[in-house]
Amino acid sequence: MNIIELIDNMRAGKEAALARLISLAERNDPQLSDVMQKIQPQLGHAYTIGITGPPGAGKSSLTNQLTQQLRQQDYTVGIIAIDPSSPFTGGAVLGDRVRMEDHYLDPGVFIRSMASRGSHGGLARAAKDAIKILDASGKDFILVETVGVGQTELDVMQTVDTVAVVLVPEGGDAIQMLKAGLMEIADLFVVNKADRDGAPQIVSALKSILHLKYTTSGNITKRESAGDDVWEVPVVATQGISGEGVGEMLARINKHREFIQASGELEHRRKQRRREDLLSQLQYLMRETLEQACKESDDIHTLVNRVVAGDDASHAVIGKLLPLTLDYMQNQSKNL
Amino acid sequence: MNIIELIDNMRAGKEAALARLISLAERNDPQLSDVMQKIQPQLGHAYTIGITGPPGAGKSSLTNQLTQQLRQQDYTVGIIAIDPSSPFTGGAVLGDRVRMEDHYLDPGVFIRSMASRGSHGGLARAAKDAIKILDASGKDFILVETVGVGQTELDVMQTVDTVAVVLVPEGGDAIQMLKAGLMEIADLFVVNKADRDGAPQIVSALKSILHLKYTTSGNITKRESAGDDVWEVPVVATQGISGEGVGEMLARINKHREFIQASGELEHRRKQRRREDLLSQLQYLMRETLEQACKESDDIHTLVNRVVAGDDASHAVIGKLLPLTLDYMQNQSKNL
Repeated sequence: MNIIELIDNMRAGKEAALARLISLAERNDPQLSDVMQKIQPQLGHAYTIGITGPPGAGKSSLTNQLTQQLRQQDYTVGIIAIDPSSPFTGGAVLGDRVRMEDHYLDPGVFIRSMASRGSHGGLARAAKDAIKILDASGKDFILVETVGVGQTELDVMQTVDTVAVVLVPEGGDAIQMLKAGLMEIADLFVVNKADRDGAPQIVSALKSILHLKYTTSGNITKRESAGDDVWEVPVVATQGISGEGVGEMLARINKHREFIQASGELEHRRKQRRREDLLSQLQYLMRETLEQACKESDDIHTLVNRVVAGDDASHAVIGKLLPLTLDYMQNQSKNL
Repeated sequence: MNIIELIDNMRAGKEAALARLISLAERNDPQLSDVMQKIQPQLGHAYTIGITGPPGAGKSSLTNQLTQQLRQQDYTVGIIAIDPSSPFTGGAVLGDRVRMEDHYLDPGVFIRSMASRGSHGGLARAAKDAIKILDASGKDFILVETVGVGQTELDVMQTVDTVAVVLVPEGGDAIQMLKAGLMEIADLFVVNKADRDGAPQIVSALKSILHLKYTTSGNITKRESAGDDVWEVPVVATQGISGEGVGEMLARINKHREFIQASGELEHRRKQRRREDLLSQLQYLMRETLEQACKESDDIHTLVNRVVAGDDASHAVIGKLLPLTLDYMQNQSKNL
């Protein structure tokens, strides 16, 4: 089946076509750029929600509950679950997905797990393309669930409209996670497993830290402020298993959506996102060509090996290496 | 004071000089490349140990205990603590460091905290240079402590000789962390807070997963295997606060050191590391020039803006954008 048929079938709601298109994105298929160009006009309908936080915070069950609520309101939902891959944990990863099983039969819900391969921006790139494909398929909401707080995850979170950061009471997680850089990206904090000890303390701790943030001048970043208006990041307590508090979580997400739409922040974010996408694709392309250059160009190979052998500091050769690499890349780019 | 004096003073054990050189690395000072070239001949003495794992696992107290034991054996120690930065959590970060206070007065210990800024490989680059500078300063051991399991942290962990992954009993952390990709980089697992419920279960769960790993053919990667010999990743139970089990942890680290030295794996890793360092520096340089090109070149600016506005898919312009960017970079690199 050719690309146009695939896209038409996807637009017509055929899950198999959607799945195949996302697979193209996952393996960075040569046809992908064709696909992305063709779906470009259909982008922008879906509202994307990121759900991130430490491992074990219960993100999968929250995603599950949110999906249920969105379905009750007749919205279609696409879910991208980003699981770091390990040959030894496939089982555990699947374990999480099992909770989503009740949605597998629902044509209004499409679920895809993507695996992190620690590749140079590879997963982030694939996930971003998959989100666009889901958007083009006409889904109303796209939920993006990431494990951990790594650069890849942060990259992916920068491509969603609303970021919910999920924390759990124990292990001093709240403060630790703020240290892990989640404070800056959170549009909403969710304290999950709120039935456990210490939950109220963490909720109030978060609130006071956030209050401090809004009363400390200079700490309001562009993405938070809309003119004189400021989005005050709310803190919601939930129980992912029972679903308690998930209604309020969704209400806050919708409030945030209204806020960034009214303030023009949504459009601003999406522009930023498209710029960052483009530049990181370019950067990724260069990295690949660079690896190739090390193998194929003798001059480059020789310089690199002097550093590998420890004879030269990388700083000593980089001045010579850069122009050589650029020459090589230019010859390659002509064949693109 | 010029670079040569600074390096001489550092080599002579002057902490102020060492601190200033690391600061050059942190802000990617123009003089840095000069420094790195000059210290190149002095590299390779220090043995570097990475201590990583989920937030709240007690990595700082383990680092503290390890330092104490190494000092009792008269080894000098350099510590790089990588703290993701947030304007609101400086306090919390310092809180961790306080535990190290007893070492601050010890001239045989040098401690430096470095902050993550989510920069494009910026922190990883700075941390790697700082490790080299500590190496050149003559430290016997360098402990590198990272919070979280992000790409930056993984990059940094790839620059150390032995990686200790720290887990805690609660929150299903063990399995979750394996999902987060730590399985592959661990030379040693440490179950900290071993006095808590569930510690024995996690120790045995880890051991059985690891056993599975060694009995499943094809899962032994190059970095683990040395000829027919295989390093079987041990699991150690510790209590970071009391120091219980830390002696065994250090013993296992030394065993791993002997193993990778005998097998030639250490040299292999260090070569890989120098190669990756060089290529990522090159990549980082290109990314910076790329950002600059978007501002300064009208042609590039125009193409980028079509994507930013949503008029074109990034895939549609990248073919034109790449050669333009390479041209721009080439002109820039002449001024390097």
